[in-house]
Formats: sequence, structure tokens, C-alpha cells
Amino acid sequence: MKKILAVTGIRSEYFILQPIFEELTKRNDIRLKVVVTGTHLSPLHGNTYKLIENDGYNLIKLETLLSSDLLSGRCKSVGIQLMGLTDIVLREKPDWLMVLGDREESITTATVGTYMNIPVAHICGGDRVVGNIDDSVRHAVTKLAHLHFPTTRENGDRILKMGEEPWRVNVVGNPALDSIRKQENLSYDYINNRLGTNLKEEKPFILLIKHPLSSEIEEAENQMRVTLEAVSELGYSTIITYPNSDAGGYDMIRVIKEFERKYSFIKAFETLPRDIFVNLQRKAALLLGNSSSGILEAPFLKLPVVNVGNRQKQRQHAENIIFVPHEKEKIKESIEKAIFDKDFIELCKNCINPYGDGYSGERIARIIAETEINNELINKQIIY
Amino acid sequence: MKKILAVTGIRSEYFILQPIFEELTKRNDIRLKVVVTGTHLSPLHGNTYKLIENDGYNLIKLETLLSSDLLSGRCKSVGIQLMGLTDIVLREKPDWLMVLGDREESITTATVGTYMNIPVAHICGGDRVVGNIDDSVRHAVTKLAHLHFPTTRENGDRILKMGEEPWRVNVVGNPALDSIRKQENLSYDYINNRLGTNLKEEKPFILLIKHPLSSEIEEAENQMRVTLEAVSELGYSTIITYPNSDAGGYDMIRVIKEFERKYSFIKAFETLPRDIFVNLQRKAALLLGNSSSGILEAPFLKLPVVNVGNRQKQRQHAENIIFVPHEKEKIKESIEKAIFDKDFIELCKNCINPYGDGYSGERIARIIAETEINNELINKQIIY
Amino acid sequence: MKKILAVTGIRSEYFILQPIFEELTKRNDIRLKVVVTGTHLSPLHGNTYKLIENDGYNLIKLETLLSSDLLSGRCKSVGIQLMGLTDIVLREKPDWLMVLGDREESITTATVGTYMNIPVAHICGGDRVVGNIDDSVRHAVTKLAHLHFPTTRENGDRILKMGEEPWRVNVVGNPALDSIRKQENLSYDYINNRLGTNLKEEKPFILLIKHPLSSEIEEAENQMRVTLEAVSELGYSTIITYPNSDAGGYDMIRVIKEFERKYSFIKAFETLPRDIFVNLQRKAALLLGNSSSGILEAPFLKLPVVNVGNRQKQRQHAENIIFVPHEKEKIKESIEKAIFDKDFIELCKNCINPYGDGYSGERIARIIAETEINNELINKQIIY
Amino acid sequence: MKKILAVTGIRSEYFILQPIFEELTKRNDIRLKVVVTGTHLSPLHGNTYKLIENDGYNLIKLETLLSSDLLSGRCKSVGIQLMGLTDIVLREKPDWLMVLGDREESITTATVGTYMNIPVAHICGGDRVVGNIDDSVRHAVTKLAHLHFPTTRENGDRILKMGEEPWRVNVVGNPALDSIRKQENLSYDYINNRLGTNLKEEKPFILLIKHPLSSEIEEAENQMRVTLEAVSELGYSTIITYPNSDAGGYDMIRVIKEFERKYSFIKAFETLPRDIFVNLQRKAALLLGNSSSGILEAPFLKLPVVNVGNRQKQRQHAENIIFVPHEKEKIKESIEKAIFDKDFIELCKNCINPYGDGYSGERIARIIAETEINNELINKQIIY
Repeated sequence: MKKILAVTGIRSEYFILQPIFEELTKRNDIRLKVVVTGTHLSPLHGNTYKLIENDGYNLIKLETLLSSDLLSGRCKSVGIQLMGLTDIVLREKPDWLMVLGDREESITTATVGTYMNIPVAHICGGDRVVGNIDDSVRHAVTKLAHLHFPTTRENGDRILKMGEEPWRVNVVGNPALDSIRKQENLSYDYINNRLGTNLKEEKPFILLIKHPLSSEIEEAENQMRVTLEAVSELGYSTIITYPNSDAGGYDMIRVIKEFERKYSFIKAFETLPRDIFVNLQRKAALLLGNSSSGILEAPFLKLPVVNVGNRQKQRQHAENIIFVPHEKEKIKESIEKAIFDKDFIELCKNCINPYGDGYSGERIARIIAETEINNELINKQIIY
Repeated sequence: MKKILAVTGIRSEYFILQPIFEELTKRNDIRLKVVVTGTHLSPLHGNTYKLIENDGYNLIKLETLLSSDLLSGRCKSVGIQLMGLTDIVLREKPDWLMVLGDREESITTATVGTYMNIPVAHICGGDRVVGNIDDSVRHAVTKLAHLHFPTTRENGDRILKMGEEPWRVNVVGNPALDSIRKQENLSYDYINNRLGTNLKEEKPFILLIKHPLSSEIEEAENQMRVTLEAVSELGYSTIITYPNSDAGGYDMIRVIKEFERKYSFIKAFETLPRDIFVNLQRKAALLLGNSSSGILEAPFLKLPVVNVGNRQKQRQHAENIIFVPHEKEKIKESIEKAIFDKDFIELCKNCINPYGDGYSGERIARIIAETEINNELINKQIIY
Repeated sequence: MKKILAVTGIRSEYFILQPIFEELTKRNDIRLKVVVTGTHLSPLHGNTYKLIENDGYNLIKLETLLSSDLLSGRCKSVGIQLMGLTDIVLREKPDWLMVLGDREESITTATVGTYMNIPVAHICGGDRVVGNIDDSVRHAVTKLAHLHFPTTRENGDRILKMGEEPWRVNVVGNPALDSIRKQENLSYDYINNRLGTNLKEEKPFILLIKHPLSSEIEEAENQMRVTLEAVSELGYSTIITYPNSDAGGYDMIRVIKEFERKYSFIKAFETLPRDIFVNLQRKAALLLGNSSSGILEAPFLKLPVVNVGNRQKQRQHAENIIFVPHEKEKIKESIEKAIFDKDFIELCKNCINPYGDGYSGERIARIIAETEINNELINKQIIY
Repeated sequence: MKKILAVTGIRSEYFILQPIFEELTKRNDIRLKVVVTGTHLSPLHGNTYKLIENDGYNLIKLETLLSSDLLSGRCKSVGIQLMGLTDIVLREKPDWLMVLGDREESITTATVGTYMNIPVAHICGGDRVVGNIDDSVRHAVTKLAHLHFPTTRENGDRILKMGEEPWRVNVVGNPALDSIRKQENLSYDYINNRLGTNLKEEKPFILLIKHPLSSEIEEAENQMRVTLEAVSELGYSTIITYPNSDAGGYDMIRVIKEFERKYSFIKAFETLPRDIFVNLQRKAALLLGNSSSGILEAPFLKLPVVNVGNRQKQRQHAENIIFVPHEKEKIKESIEKAIFDKDFIELCKNCINPYGDGYSGERIARIIAETEINNELINKQIIY
């Protein structure tokens, strides 16, 4: 019976982790506890720990997010998290730590595992998202973690090149696809009822998610403004979810509120329930912004994507994505292309998805359960 | 005029950094402040911040070291340091952060630089010391840092293989050699006077420094015991300095005190002044234990080394070093070889030193001063 | 030349402290630095540190406020503040610490002074505000602080009864009155211009400030709702400023936004510039809610106050205040009384103000400057 | 079933708390967990959490003690403790918090209870120990705590004078006497065996415990030296236990080690098992130093006390105590008086003990178990 302590700090992470949690919980050789931290416990971000609680997992709450829009605020939160997580790990004595991606909780969890000799399973390492500190953090976590679960072969190869021992690297696909695969279909009526919207099958609508870049904080406000000007001039129904808590996020939210007040066809939500969100992805004419779901989930759903700006730019992607700069006219053109260009829509429908088959959670759960915890696992060696 | 904030947490680090500080201070386009943290502010480790203060640098004190012998204690201290360092960086707004190696302050400084968009100069990256968490931390710091100053070509190549952009990597030699080069010769009388010892030119003596390994904490006590049994059976004068504050260190200190009480030819010091230490390295028959100075400094001084146990084992080294396991008889044999085997002593005298020429500080200071701070520097890209 | 480190965590505090800062700055035997912390650095609370920066003081930023609506969030922030403040005090080595009231920064500053043997000047101690944790904190701070500056004789007597040595207690009046006294008169046009409002001399308007009580968090939302229902049924122009960051505050803000959307005569602001705020106090028909300015400042301005609920209830107050429970009809009645009842309005005009003459800042600055720092000051003795 | 979370940070505290824990554990309407923190987890202080673990209590470890001899080190540890304790309380959701005295954990526990609306039971409040920050902290804790358990009527009266509501104050005696009462008698042989000493019934021996004063840190080293010079000139067997971790403690330990090396009749221990310690108190000719056990426990045991210096000076005490300054000759005289002056020894035998009857634990456990948790308990009111 092994005890796994998984750490999650933001809703987007949880949706990728959840299918793994589900599979871990099914096994009787594993006991799972989930540390919820970061934005999950922030009312400004919708107190999303309640989602995880409602899903029935055993939670440990760790408050860490400073109410700040300075870079230092985010950084200091990393220290707060590291302190609290150490206390929790001292108490829980888990056999494994598990964490995803490239955020605060990724570097803290990997650091705690390293200093406390507890193996760390890292989900979604090896990826490349240029122009963001996320890249540095993700690769640093790779150098600390003990078992790697990249989503694609390309990402797995990148991990190997960084000097990781091959037996530590497991290409498993993107677990988020598991939950998309399993998500029930919802009707327009049901969705409109839940959201107070007026979406219709025959009217194309836009799903908009846009986050600030750590290297372009000053421009965050204007980037959101340009995007929303394009949207408002076209006049399609548009559903927005708020950006994450990174520096610049507050500025973007202010702009969103401004446009929401002016245009009735724009509707913003702090957060959306997962079932609604997946069905919006299924029904939307396109995904606009720079959300990673445009890279990771959209090809599985054959959803066209208009990615605005530098975020996601050099990541491995399928053919369903159009990259545009922060220029209003180009954004408008690309939106129209995604809605009306039959060739492009056909291309999207047939695009190859490098992110797996929707059965990643089971693979990860099994590999962790079957990996022996010994000195070879704990003592990392660079291969060159 | 650029402002550099250097961070140091332990005496051994400072001795490598000091020649860089000296060169930075000479320049009139650089202003240097030094954050002293970790063991520097611990009375148990000799309050070594006073050394740095006496050397005339502008200090900012940051207390972080928990009085603990649990792994969690060290790890929690990392969080405390990250919090405090963030506050300091918010206040100081440095143009550069500088840190060395693979300890707590290395990972915290690199993390702060990453999240706060301040370039980090990393000294002594790319090294390999198997069987210690230091390796993981050092390579993670490499993935976060913006400018790399490895000591040897081999280490520089390792950094390149990890995907760092070539222009970020500067092979400069080991700055510790600068201070050894400049250190005045001291007489036996002077040294004996200062230490209360009775060393003589004609009597070979041993310099012993031995640290615990993070992966062999439980054995730390016994490792020190076996080593001291070998020493005490041979009966040569032996000068010991205390191990660092890593888990297991307290156990080792207890054993050292026990032997010191029993054998008058064994003398231990919490810490030794740098001038004394360098002259002891020059005069000793051998360096015993597992100190990194056996790898990094001894070949420059042509000093024979007996390295006991796994620490330092797979690092790049010169021919002046004998590796032995924790077995009393083997340790005794190797000590005798280092003292009496003329061939081996000759080999040591002619060993090739891959760690540079004693002019590294000037190189590092110049490169940092001349590097433009721009987006290209801040936004790291992995090369594959 | 003595160095004073003052600590402030919220806008309301700063407006009381500012007249003291002004007088301290005038003196040439005092050097002042101001630690800004808590809500001052929170974008959600208007980043009010910028006010202090604009006033020309020398700031040290200390981020501490967690983005949380749990009680634990506020409490953990106290710990974060204590850690950071200690680092700052170690570095600054101030001769004096200064803090006001009964909030997080009050208990942390007093604790740091106590443990680091630095005298603490405490402004506005001895007060009594039943039904809030503030009371416990304020009195605890009194037991830690070294020099007391209560605003009224009654509060000074309470401090003496708690066993403080009489020479430590200085009744000085409320420094907030200094700035009200000095505040220039602004015209309706100017104010309307700045706020985008449509206030007129001939139309009575309401100033509404309402905070949550720590002992009635669950009711916070409903308390705000009842108050706003009363206001909206009467239909007078109403200017609201947001509640503080205590638990329950987020809920109240949500309700405010809801009513603001519905009623054009209701206008809410995250924060108001001090000059505008004082002039609104001068021009308003009444102050509604439970703000401490109703107790502390309104009698100086002869402004009628309708205090809703238990906050402020057992505090020393003048005759210009009507206490009502959270009942819509009673709130409506009291508002009408404050606007139309000539006897009550006359009573307000002649009310006796126990909070001083508007020259408190100078007194406090002088006493601190002239107090010798010695063992008698540092070593507190209870008098019984 | 009520859940109590007790917090302890030092061995001396635990020995007073343990009899309460024992009685709480006996009850079936109470569940007890113990947070061990501060010096309990420091190897330098003997890792005394193991004592509590061995006694069978359910522990939660919280590492907080910085390895520092600066005042700031102790103060920063308070902040670390406050952060960690908040996390624990958020997770445990106890019905009650319990803490003793006037140390770091006292102020942090009372602060957490206050901000999180959890009632705090405070043991040993109301006491007076002039010349130490402990006094300020203890009285501040009184102003925060919800139920008071002073040891003597005098202390209870002091709490009432500070404005606490009378129903919150319960004079119960000193729980430490419970464990002394129950402690089995040990023979000289057994003790000598355990300690490696050579104590004998017919040879008077001294028990020496001396702590630094926060207001006399610089003198700490010399105070210990003078005391040990007196002891060494007299030549009686002397058993020492180390001072606590307060600033100055390290200096004192250094002096103790120096004298221990020189004089075989002096023997020092980091810590002593409780059964041994109580029996040494029973058998010693006198207690020397400034330990609070001279005030609190010695009159129950009729043990003569020579209290050196200002610590304990103005506390309520029985007639068995001689106060002397830090002067060698006076210390020697007083020791001789305590050993040979028959009248004084007789006086000690008949001294009145104000600290209770050895049944305090049961009283405290019962009162807590029977106190209803309601708004009246949580919302404190000052009585004037």
C-alpha cells in the first residue's frame, strides 16, 4: 500500500490531474491525498478547491497565494508554499509526490521531494512554450523529478536530451483527454440555463481564454483590449473565462469587465464547471486567445484555434491552429477564417493529434504503482 | 552602473566567491551587495558572516537555518530563504543576481531571478557529484540561470548538452584558485600559535574534512567513526574542520568530539580562517575525507588526497586523488601511500589541473559587467 | 538623530498616522521610514501604498496579504508579516517602532519590538469596540508596547487600569483630526468631476462605509444587503467605499456591486482620495454603516451618524450617533431622522468631541523625540 | 467529544503540561493532539519531542527554531511558528487550543485562537517575573486567551485586575506538582548508573540550572562564569542542565563546557529525564541558578534555593529561597548557608507552598471539558 501526495494549485492543472486521480483511487495498492494550494483557495479565482472536494478526494488545504500584482508577490508565494508543503510532507510521510507542469507548485513539490528523498512523479514535463518563465521552471522540475510522464514523443525526447536516464521517462499522452473522452454531451438548453446565455446551434460562438505572459506583463492590458475590440466589432456571441493569477491578470480582468458591461453578446465567468467547459469546446466555432487547451485538447476535439500573441508559439501543435499577432484586423480575419473557411475547417477535422488516446491516467497510475522505491530511483544520475 | 546582489550561505562557498567579489569591487561600473544567509548566521557554524563583514563587503543578513537534524529542517529553510530573499530583491531591485553551486541558496536565488525577471549568474554549474541531491539541485539551477560560469571544459560541455544556449556558457576556471594563488605563506610557528597546535615541518600531518551524504545520512556517524579510527591508529597529527549543516552533520560532530577528547594529536575546529586553511593545505601531507577542495583546489596545490566514500566519486578529477571505501584498513593503507609512496607523490606534483589558472574572478566580473541586460538574456530558450 | 520605523497595513490607518509622519518629518532629530504592508500592496484594495509614496515618505514594501476568505488566511498573513518585519528590523536597526490600533501589523510590530528590545510607540490604544477580535488584539498590543498614545482620557484610563506604568501613557487626541483640520474645501463641481457623480448642495446625500465583524462573518452578506435595501428604497444619492479585507469583506463587495448595477443613485469606490473623502464627510447629510470614522471623526465635523449593527457599539462616542440594528425599517427611519429632524441636527452641531483638537501629531512626535531610550523604557513592569 | 490541540515548545513547559495531558487523556469526552515545536525538535536541545512521543501522545511536528544567537532569530521563529500553526489549525479544526506560559508558542497559539475564533486555554498566566520580555508576552497572552488557569491566588488576582471577566479565571495550582507528587523514588545507585555520576547520600550536591535574561544578554557568559567559579572553588558535586535556547544561551553553554572539562566534580547534561530530575531535586542540598522550578516546585519539595541575579526576583515565592547578585563571594556564602545553616534548612522544611496540592491537572481537564463553547466564550470583553 503506497501513499501518494499530489499537489495542485490551479484549476487548469486539476483537470489534467483528475483522470490520474480517478485511476489511482480505483487501485487498492494506492492511497491518494491531494494538497490544494495557490489559486484553488483564492475567492478571486473561484475557490476551486471545492470542485476537488466535491469530486470526493481527501484534501489538505495549504494557503499560499498573496494578493499582489507585483512579480515579487508570486515569487514570495513560492516560498510560503515550500514551507507549508515541507510541514505537510513531514507529517504525511508519503511514498510518492506527484505534480504537474511548470507552476509554483511544480517547483516546490520537486524541491521538497529532492531534499526529503521522496520520489517525485512529474506529469507533462519536456514541453516547450517559448517566452515564458514556465519553460525554465518546467525544465528545472525535470532535473529534480524522479519519474517523468511527458504527453508526447517529442517532449519525451527533449527530457532524454537533458540527460535524464531513459528508464525514468514514460510517454503516456495527455490525461486531460481522458476526461474529455468521458464527458457527457450537454444540450444547448441545458448550457444556456446553467450560464444564463443564449447560445444556439445555428449561431457560431467564440470561446475566449487569454492569459498574461510573464515577459509581457506591461502589455497584458492592451493585449486583452485588442483581442476584445476584434471580438466586439465582429459581434459573435463570446464566452470568456478569466485569466490566471499571474502578474498582469488583474489588468486583463479589468478590461474584460469593461467590455462585458458594454456588449451584451460578451459574457465572462471567473470559472466554468468542467462539464460545461468541455461541451463549449465541442460546440464552439473556435477557441480564441492563448490557452494551452488550444494546443493540448483542441486537436482531440477537432476544434479550430486562433492563438493570439507569443504564448504557445513554439510548442508542438497540430494543424488546427492559426497564430496571429496582437493586431485587430489580423485577429478578425483569422476568426472569420476559422468560422467560414471550409478548407481550414476540413483540415481541423482531420488533424493528427499527438497528445494521446484518452487513456493516459490509467497508464500513469499503473507505472507509479509498479515502480519500486529504491536507491536507484532516489539517486538521480545525469547520463553524460 | 549595475547593481549585483550575490547570495552566499556557507563558508566554503564564500571562499570561491570572494575572488569574484574582489574583482567586482575593483570595477567602477558595478556595485555589489552580499546577502549572507544559511550557516553563515549560525553560531553552531561559527557565525562566518563575520568573515565577510571583515572583508569589507556590504552585507544584508537573512536568517534561514533551522536548528534541525531532520531532512525537513533543511527543506523548510529553503522556503524561509525564498520568502526573505524575495523581500530583499523587491527592495534592492538589483540588475543581477549571483550565486554559486548547488545548495539551498543556489535554488532559491535562481528561482527568485526566474520569477522576478532578473538575470542570474551561476558560478560552478555543470559539475557532477554522484550520490547526492546536490547534483539534482545544481542541474535544476542551470535550467533556471541566465549566465553560466562552469570551472572546466567538461562541465561547460555538460551544460551545453542540457540544452542551454551556447552564448550563455563561459568556461572560466575555479575562482577559489585565485585566492589560493594570492594567499601569503605562513610559518609553522605562526600557525601553531594561532591554532594552539604543535605542527612541524618534519612531521607529516593530515588535514581532515568530511561531510555527510544526503543519501547516506544514517551511516554518517559510522563513516566518521571508521575514518577517525584509521587516523587514531596511525597517530599522525590531524587537523579537522567540522562538517556542514546537512542532515547527519550533528552526528559526525559528536563523533569528532569523542575522538578529540581521547587523542591529543587530533584537533578539531568549527571553522578555520582562510589564510590558515590555505597554508595547511600547502603544508599537509594529505587531505583526507570527502571535501570538494580535494577535487577543486588540491591539484592546483599538488596536494595528495584520500577521498573516503562515494562523495566526489564521479567528478572530474586530477591524478592526485585516491578513492577508498569506508574500510579502516584501506583508509590506513591509502594514508600511508599518500605520505610515503614516492611515485604517487611525484605523480601528484605533476598532475594536470583542469580547474584553471587562478585568474577566474577577473573573467567573471568582466563578462557580467559587459553583458547587456535585455529580453534575449531574460527569456531562456532550450536549444532543442 | 533617532530612526523611527512606522508600520502600516491599511489605508484607514494611514490617514490617522499621516499627521504624525508629517510632524516627525519636520523635526531634524528624527529620521522616518515607513513599512507598507497588508492591504496597502493589494490591487484588490487599490494598491494604497502609492498614496503614501506620493506623499513623499521613504517606503519599505512588505507583501503579506493572502488572497483568502478563510479566517486562516488572515492569521497566516500575520505570521508572514512577522517574519518579514523581523528581517527588516534586523537590517534597519531602528531606535523606535511605531504602529497604530488593533490590526495584524499592530500585533506583529509590538511582538517584534518586544523580542528585539526596540521600544514600540502605540497609537490609539485603550479603545473598546465590543464584538470584534480587534479588542483582544488592541489590549494585547498595549501589554507589549512601551509608549501609549490613547486618543481620549477614557482610553488612557483603561490603559492605566490594565497595569501600565503611568509615565508610559500620553493622552494626545486623535491625529486623524489634524488632517481633517488642514484639508482644503472642495466644491461640488470639483468633486462631481473627480468621481463622475452628480451631487448637489440642495440634495442630501449619504456616505456609506460598512465593514464585516469577525464574530458575524456569516451574516456579513446579509447585513450589507439589508442596509442597501434601506438605502435603495429611500433613493438618496449614496457614495460607498468598499469594506476592508477582513473575512466577509468579499461577500459584502459582491452585494455592493449588485446594487450598484441596479440603482444609478448608488455609486461605489474601492477607495477615495483623502481630500475627496474629507469633503464628502463635510457635505454629506449623514454617515451610514459602521465605520470608525463615525466615532472618531464625525463629532469633530458635527456630522450625523447612523451606525448599523454591533460594531462600534460600546465605544466612547459623542451625541451625533444613532445606533440601529440590521432592520430595514429602523435603518430607514434613522436616515430620515438624520436628514430631517431639526432637533437631532442641532444636537449634532453642538456635540462635544472627546477626540482632541486637531494638534495630536505634533504632540506625539515631540514626546517620542524627547523620550530617552534606556532600560527603564525597555523593561516593562506591571504596576500591581 | 471535544478536540484539544495543545502546543509545546520546550521541555520545561512539557513537564508542567504533562499532568494535564494525562488527565485529558483519561476522559472520554476529550481527544488530545500535541503540537511539538521550538526547541523540542532541535538536536542541540536534545530532541525532546521524543520524550513526549514516548509518553504516548499523538504528536504533530512543527519545526520553527532558527539556529541563531541574534534576537532577530528568536523573533523570526515566532513568525515561522505562527504560519505553520495556522496551517495545522486549519486542518485539525480543534475545539480548543491549549498553551502554557510566556514563550513563543504562547503568543502564537493565542494569536491563532484569536484570529480563528477558537478558544484558548492559557495555563500559568498572571505571573510576574521582572526584567524579562516574558512578562510582556505573558500578559499579552492573557489579553488574548479565553480561559485562564493561574497557579496561585495572587496571579489570579493580577489577571482580574487586567480587566478579564471573572468567570474566565480559574486558580488551580501548578500542574507540575502533580507529576512530582506521582514520581517514584529512585536510589542513588540507580541515578549514578544512569548519569555516570558518583553522588552519595552523605555528600551534599548542587543542582544548577541557569538561563540567560533577555535584558542581560551581553552579560550571559559572565553570569555563568561567576556562578561556576563559585561552584568550582567550593568543590561540591554539581549537576548542571543546559540553559534554554534564548539569546545568550549558546554563550553560557560554552562556559559550562569549559568548566566541565576542568573540574571532574562538575557534570553537565543537555537534558535530564523527568524521573531523574525530580529525584535530584529531592536529594540535592540546594538548587542553584535562576530556574523557575526554584519558585514553582522547590517549596513543594522543601528544597533550599539560591537564586542568582534578577530572573525570578519579583515573583511570588516561599521562604526557601535566597536571592543573591552575580558576585562570587555572595554566591559561595549562600551555598554554604543552604547546606549548613540549620535554621534556614528548618525554615525551608516548613515553608508554605502557594502553588497548590498536586491535583491541578484534573481540575484543568474538568473545567475545559465542562466549558460550553459559545459566543460568550469567544467574544472577550474587558470589564472596564
